[in-house]
Formats: sequence, structure tokens, C-alpha cells
Amino acid sequence: MKNTYFQSIEVRPSGSTLPLDEVVEKLAFNEQGLMPVITQDATSKDVLMLAWMNQSALEKTLSTGRMTYWSRSRNAFWEKGETSGHTQELVNMSIDCDGDAILCQVNQTGAACHTGRIDCFYLSVDRDQQQVRVNKAAT
Amino acid sequence: MKNTYFQSIEVRPSGSTLPLDEVVEKLAFNEQGLMPVITQDATSKDVLMLAWMNQSALEKTLSTGRMTYWSRSRNAFWEKGETSGHTQELVNMSIDCDGDAILCQVNQTGAACHTGRIDCFYLSVDRDQQQVRVNKAAT
Repeated sequence: MKNTYFQSIEVRPSGSTLPLDEVVEKLAFNEQGLMPVITQDATSKDVLMLAWMNQSALEKTLSTGRMTYWSRSRNAFWEKGETSGHTQELVNMSIDCDGDAILCQVNQTGAACHTGRIDCFYLSVDRDQQQVRVNKAAT
Repeated sequence: MKNTYFQSIEVRPSGSTLPLDEVVEKLAFNEQGLMPVITQDATSKDVLMLAWMNQSALEKTLSTGRMTYWSRSRNAFWEKGETSGHTQELVNMSIDCDGDAILCQVNQTGAACHTGRIDCFYLSVDRDQQQVRVNKAAT
């Protein structure tokens, strides 16, 4: 979606900076106040999961360095690994051109997926066979 | 979010298959009928962008092998590169454990971002300096 603030900064020269609080203020959270967050393993570059943050979860993640999402099913903060021990340490965070998606590179301890798989994207689409294959057994 | 169909298949053994149309039927599109799609460069593994598909855009992508999103600003199909020439050829598609996010690995021609940058995530958060840095000049 068009966001005039993010349109205005896209022509800034490489290396120029903006205050973090100004940018966060302009982020395009959706009508539920949430933003999709892509979590990628900083070493393997595998995409681990997609989850959601509200502004408070984003600020908690930035202040603690531990990935903290908003659980839509529990309607509560969800510090990744708080119960499972499968924590995610934030390495890099970046925001996209429209200010409506966030990419986080992390150091993942253990499995990212609740099924015990390394990542959540374990259902592979086979276009030729018109099938979906279950990869990597749950542990 | 919990999805009983996807919960029921998570314990299937590695390598087992399901009919594609059955799985697509059970996907958890949001209340606008949309699903977040992560697009990753199949070679570099860089995350290029996050965009949205409805079921028809997903089916077009699968039948043509060319990434086709749903443009929320134009309220229309958006075959990536149709006007810019910056096409995305689908290499792999996978679905996550909850059936509410899709990951596509693609062969990207040219820039994925409308600003001319290789990817859309060019705004880097610097937690120490409390700044956001603009990376990679627009072309």
C-alpha cells in the first residue's frame, strides 16, 4: 500500500539516516495494529517463519534483542522460546519500502517450528504432480 | 492461528503427500481473502519482498510459473514484471505449518523493488544508534 512517508524517503542517498522513533511512528500496521514479520536464520539464510508484531512487540524486540511477537491466537505477547527454550536472538532488522513488512535475521536456538521442525515451511508444493509433500518429520 | 486441517497433517511422515487442491482449499486466507507471500531469491537466498495473494493469484502463479500477486492498492492481479520486465520465475513454493503463509523461491530478473533496489528491505534498523539507515541507492 502507498505510504507517503516511505515514498518520501525512498530517494534518500544510500547511507543517510532517520531517527528510529520517527520511522516506527510511520509504520503501516494493519487494521488490527499488526505487521507481518519474516524471520530468517542469519547463518543459513533459511526463512524460518512468518509471525506478527504490534508496535509494543516491535519495541520489546528492539529493546531486549529477543524476538517477541504478538500471538493472534492467545492475544498476548509471545517471546519466542519463553516456554520451549527455542529462542531467537535478533541480529539484523530491516523494514521494507512501503513500511508494511519487517525482516529479521536471527540466531535460532533449536527448532523455529512448534512441530519440532527447523522451520515452519515444510509443506512443499509439487506443481507437476499437483501434490503437497510433507517434509522433515516432526520430532 | 490454529487450523485443524494443518494440525492434522503435521504428524504425517516425511515424504507423504496430499492432493494440492485439498490443501489449497484449506488455506487460511485472511478476512480480505489474502495470504502473505514471502519471495526469496532462489540463488542468493536474499528475501526480496513480501506481497499478498488471493486464491486466484495463487492458482495463476501455480499454473503459469510466474509470480502473480494481488495488488491491494490497485485491487487487481499484479503479475510481477508485467510492466517493468522485472519478472519472477517460480522455482519452489512451500506452505507453513498453520496454512497461513507461503514462501516462494524465485529466479528474479532485474530488481524486485519498485525503487530499483534488488530487494525491498533496504531500511536497516540500528538499535545502538536508534537510527534507520537507507541502504542501496535507488536507480
